[in-house]
Amino acid sequence: MINNICFSHPFDNNIFESILDETQYVGYYDLPNQDLGYLDNFYRQMRLRIKPEIITDIVIIGIGGSSLGTKAIYEFMKTRKKLARKIHFIDSTDPNTILSICKSINLQSSYFFIISKSGTTIETLASYKYILSSIKDIELKKNNFAIITDPNSSLQKYAENHDILFLNSSPDVGGRFSVLSEVGIVPLWFCGIDIKKLLNGAKSVKDNFFMKKLIYKNILTKGSFYSANQKKYNINALFSYSDAFQSLNDWYVQLWGESLGKKHKTTQKNIGLTPVGLIGPKDQHSFLQLISEGPRDKTVTFLKIKNYENNYKIPKASINNLEEFDDLNGIRFSKLINLQADSVIESLKNYKEIPLDEIIITEQNESSIGQLIFYFQLLTSVVGGYLGVNTYDQPGVESGKKILKKYLEKL
Amino acid sequence: MINNICFSHPFDNNIFESILDETQYVGYYDLPNQDLGYLDNFYRQMRLRIKPEIITDIVIIGIGGSSLGTKAIYEFMKTRKKLARKIHFIDSTDPNTILSICKSINLQSSYFFIISKSGTTIETLASYKYILSSIKDIELKKNNFAIITDPNSSLQKYAENHDILFLNSSPDVGGRFSVLSEVGIVPLWFCGIDIKKLLNGAKSVKDNFFMKKLIYKNILTKGSFYSANQKKYNINALFSYSDAFQSLNDWYVQLWGESLGKKHKTTQKNIGLTPVGLIGPKDQHSFLQLISEGPRDKTVTFLKIKNYENNYKIPKASINNLEEFDDLNGIRFSKLINLQADSVIESLKNYKEIPLDEIIITEQNESSIGQLIFYFQLLTSVVGGYLGVNTYDQPGVESGKKILKKYLEKL
Repeated sequence: MINNICFSHPFDNNIFESILDETQYVGYYDLPNQDLGYLDNFYRQMRLRIKPEIITDIVIIGIGGSSLGTKAIYEFMKTRKKLARKIHFIDSTDPNTILSICKSINLQSSYFFIISKSGTTIETLASYKYILSSIKDIELKKNNFAIITDPNSSLQKYAENHDILFLNSSPDVGGRFSVLSEVGIVPLWFCGIDIKKLLNGAKSVKDNFFMKKLIYKNILTKGSFYSANQKKYNINALFSYSDAFQSLNDWYVQLWGESLGKKHKTTQKNIGLTPVGLIGPKDQHSFLQLISEGPRDKTVTFLKIKNYENNYKIPKASINNLEEFDDLNGIRFSKLINLQADSVIESLKNYKEIPLDEIIITEQNESSIGQLIFYFQLLTSVVGGYLGVNTYDQPGVESGKKILKKYLEKL
Repeated sequence: MINNICFSHPFDNNIFESILDETQYVGYYDLPNQDLGYLDNFYRQMRLRIKPEIITDIVIIGIGGSSLGTKAIYEFMKTRKKLARKIHFIDSTDPNTILSICKSINLQSSYFFIISKSGTTIETLASYKYILSSIKDIELKKNNFAIITDPNSSLQKYAENHDILFLNSSPDVGGRFSVLSEVGIVPLWFCGIDIKKLLNGAKSVKDNFFMKKLIYKNILTKGSFYSANQKKYNINALFSYSDAFQSLNDWYVQLWGESLGKKHKTTQKNIGLTPVGLIGPKDQHSFLQLISEGPRDKTVTFLKIKNYENNYKIPKASINNLEEFDDLNGIRFSKLINLQADSVIESLKNYKEIPLDEIIITEQNESSIGQLIFYFQLLTSVVGGYLGVNTYDQPGVESGKKILKKYLEKL
């Protein structure tokens, strides 16, 4: 992974020291070094109940941090290699979404993960209750389901009393930082992702950061710059060149928005930076005009894949009346998409006052997505430190939940 | 369609007068009243070449304004009713996207629309050349393709010389305003969308606006407010409650960003408002924290569907150990999703200083999506007028295209 930054900013070491402190009680920092023994244990227990060989589809019932990271890795990898199982995500209360997923699977060959760290996520429980009621076979309700939840949640008690397989997630890892914990690892492993490579990718970024190598400098530079310019540049766009990054963008939006949009720890002022996820080249025809000629309120991070496995080319032959496109002849699509990114980067440099950086991963594989995940998590922690917010809570979503509860009680 | 606005702002009539002027030369205003005779004509010509009955799949090769609007309407309608044909969108140079669509279709039963108003869109031509080269059957290359392009483009000349069916799009309708023109209407009609209902929906909004009914007041109020507060509230979020709105959000992002992100007509200052598309309830677990506790830099428009066709309920039965969710029992998912929206709206009102409005469409049908399309187009024109930008051009994307051309020539 390479990260080239087109701006500079001084930074001091205090934030790094506070991150070092955090590693004592914030759980996600340890995840790249975790012991994966729980996977064998889970598989043994699962095999007492079902034949894993006949499972073709995995359904994750979970929303926000319980699904976004898993989806990011799954969608990134699935265009690259044939995975053992398909994953479906029920992450809504939209009745049409739930119905269309239920219609597309065969219950006998599906395995469900109910994922809610708190055990009280209303969307997840509503969908779970609905799906349970649509299954007639009592054994299937027990055996084809697993629950992932924090210790001692009501969901865990439910699982214990109903003889359903469950696995505890780590309570010191927040939802949006949980993709490399049990929450993401178990379903991703079951669908055929190489978990060791994924964690090794994350570990390489972690080690480089804590050994103060180049990534340390880059992350601290970006963090201090974003924080110092939070009023001027209140929007941080991630411009990802490949459709495979769509769900990574969505994951980034949650990580960034929910971690950094907070009242300041001491002043109580409303602080935050707004994430925007873009896909290239599509969004060159949508959002680029606003970046280039709109107000100077955005930083832009470009994300590219250096080498694609797919080496399809635009045909060499010229076509009558379309000769003006002959420059494309014989060029690989993978080359073209990266040239498009480079052209936009160069043009935005000419536009001035748009702080840019680019991240280039070598290939589309588990290691590189692991690197990206950990890079953005570390960057988020560092920016949160600079901004003076609590990066790991989300008090601003509680009030809506309470109002919903009142509405429901009234009905 | 209902639009409730929780803020007020004075507006004068000058912008309305300038919009009236625009209707003389900006083509999109006329689209709700268009003569659809070209559809019969197109169908007659198509039938001289193929049997439409055997076509099951439509592939649109087009990017930006040539596909986003069509996708918005198609995705919105396809969960609501069974459409005659499936639409696939090749809107990228990502080699894996192109490959996976090509793999998923049967050429004999597929019909391709190559859509580029300028006729010079590099992504579209690259994909088209690739797909042509992968087809062996010469007749199929001629007969299963149609080209939609502005008059006298090189693509039109190509079509004429190669005996390929083509249809002209209206040069006075810009790409991002073109969904209700030939660009969107032809493929949507062929896939089974009721075009008359769609246009009637748009027409009802148009007529209400120009007859200065409630929508006129709402759009002018929002436009004047957004413009007057462009520095403070530089972000406009559209929070849409239903997964069916995902592509409408993407369409909105292009319409808003590319129309309003401009140099000011006289001062040449960088002007613009940044669109953000959100989906509820998913993004309650992602972006909501930033809205509620982050800086007061966002307006939020909520979008809801009043009545869903799908009336699936959460089962009535209580479940041991999950009694805390019994308030959900017997509630329709469609009721729940709207209660979630209402709870968030109420909670954000309490947070203060977040300018809110809500749009409620009655049902998920052609008429309502036509209304939404025209509402957002009118709003964009009005905001563009207030901001003092040219709403209909996009000069800021040319420089990247020129750089790409140089790169390609060098290769």
